[in-house]
Amino acid sequence: MSGQNGQAPAELLSANNITALFDSVDAFLFDCVIWKGDKLIDGVRQTLDVLRSKGKKLIFVTNNSRRSRRQYAHKFHSLGVSVSEDEIFSSSFAAAMYLKVNNFPQENKVYVIGGEGILEELRQAGYTGLGGPEDGEKRVQLKSNCLFEHDKNVGAVVVGLDPHINYYKLQYGTLCIRENPGCLFIATNRDAVGHLTDLQEWPGAGCMVAAMCASTEKEPIVVGKPSTFMMEILSKKFQIASSRMCMVGDRLDTDILFGQNAGCKTLLVLSGVTTQSTLQDPSNNIQPDYYTNQVSDILELLGQ
Amino acid sequence: MSGQNGQAPAELLSANNITALFDSVDAFLFDCVIWKGDKLIDGVRQTLDVLRSKGKKLIFVTNNSRRSRRQYAHKFHSLGVSVSEDEIFSSSFAAAMYLKVNNFPQENKVYVIGGEGILEELRQAGYTGLGGPEDGEKRVQLKSNCLFEHDKNVGAVVVGLDPHINYYKLQYGTLCIRENPGCLFIATNRDAVGHLTDLQEWPGAGCMVAAMCASTEKEPIVVGKPSTFMMEILSKKFQIASSRMCMVGDRLDTDILFGQNAGCKTLLVLSGVTTQSTLQDPSNNIQPDYYTNQVSDILELLGQ
Repeated sequence: MSGQNGQAPAELLSANNITALFDSVDAFLFDCVIWKGDKLIDGVRQTLDVLRSKGKKLIFVTNNSRRSRRQYAHKFHSLGVSVSEDEIFSSSFAAAMYLKVNNFPQENKVYVIGGEGILEELRQAGYTGLGGPEDGEKRVQLKSNCLFEHDKNVGAVVVGLDPHINYYKLQYGTLCIRENPGCLFIATNRDAVGHLTDLQEWPGAGCMVAAMCASTEKEPIVVGKPSTFMMEILSKKFQIASSRMCMVGDRLDTDILFGQNAGCKTLLVLSGVTTQSTLQDPSNNIQPDYYTNQVSDILELLGQ
Repeated sequence: MSGQNGQAPAELLSANNITALFDSVDAFLFDCVIWKGDKLIDGVRQTLDVLRSKGKKLIFVTNNSRRSRRQYAHKFHSLGVSVSEDEIFSSSFAAAMYLKVNNFPQENKVYVIGGEGILEELRQAGYTGLGGPEDGEKRVQLKSNCLFEHDKNVGAVVVGLDPHINYYKLQYGTLCIRENPGCLFIATNRDAVGHLTDLQEWPGAGCMVAAMCASTEKEPIVVGKPSTFMMEILSKKFQIASSRMCMVGDRLDTDILFGQNAGCKTLLVLSGVTTQSTLQDPSNNIQPDYYTNQVSDILELLGQ
């Protein structure tokens, strides 16, 4: 039996197939949904420890651009998990890396619609970021003869999730992209919504990115999932082929698609936004290799 | 010779063809670009007077939702042109009319991302609008256990140009559309940019609409140009078939497309956003029937 697009339906991860998966990969990539709000999901710490003890590389790949890698490492530590900055790939970092690998000139500036995490990653990479939280309270003057000025040295606009989005930032970014020759338009990711709080979902980066697409009439370069840009960077860094990795995540259209696009094995966990009925609905055409209820099932199935 | 899509290229309006156009229509529809900033374009008043004196109905059709019809009529009067509210069709009015003709229940509320013009038209039509300018300074609490509450009686969200766009409004509108059963998602229009000030263009309603499309993963009902909804309303009101109307405007993808979609004659004026080179560029596939430099050319060509 095969699913839509000829994809075989996902297999439930079990004691029978986990060894085959385990032996076929050298690294496990996790979305940062191993926590919920400010708590680690039960059994995650032990699972990560066991994977490490068995020689598997652990890499954390998130579309969330609000934090820098340093800030993520701090969060991991506060939850009692030892993860180094080097093992974290956030879309904020990916945006800075995209500029770096494409030799974006250090003297050009970057306008940011998004959070402090993006600005910090830009600084780490040696770039000057403008905008971000600082422009959150700025207002526009819509008087007849007022001219809205923008910096002509902005050579890239990076757009991520921005809870302080306003018309000032939209006009600033739009003018840079429309009027500064060759100005890049980079999106950290295009998630529709995200769990910014425990109790509900909120508009995601896709919301700010779509607004900018509409006013500029241009499409962005997307560096977060499901684009494989982060995979290229991390595969090179750790010298592990993507075919020897397993992407573990809770979203079909970002995590699992990212893993598939990159040629990884894929494991969907049902502890986040995707339910079993969504996975098995005939309208869903993204089938991971495996699915399981939660990350800690790995531990149990490995007999630990 | 025919243009792309088999459309004949636009004819320059001239003394030779103006009589044929003039005799074939009973009404002229104008976009509100007959003014620039706070001034009427030279010769417009006289042109409108002559058209009226020759028995032509004048109708003003604009995608701008920031004003109500009453506010537009006031602006016309302040510029020395006598136009009644009945002759004005703004996308703010169209949004209210859409609810009316679709028997939207008076007891349901309407959440507005946009300006006072939309709220005023909703009131005129007997509806209760929420949001709009009042929510412009509201901020969200992204604390773990805070729940963002929305009114479960909102049955429609109207999105237009909103220079006071913020995350509060995006979340409010998104929750209504995602969680209130059957909630309508109405866009006044989807213009990418507009001349909000004399000196430059600014992000248009298309920007706020795209943001909402991204977070709701839904497409809106568009009531402004190029949708023909306003044409259906005005054609019925004045009992004039659209084939006996000529749409005069400066935008190919809204005004001219609207006229074509509705089966009107179309006349592009080059005094606004469209240049002759854009019109004649091989990549342009929207060809009006006629084009001319400015509205007042009509006067001259009619020998007045």
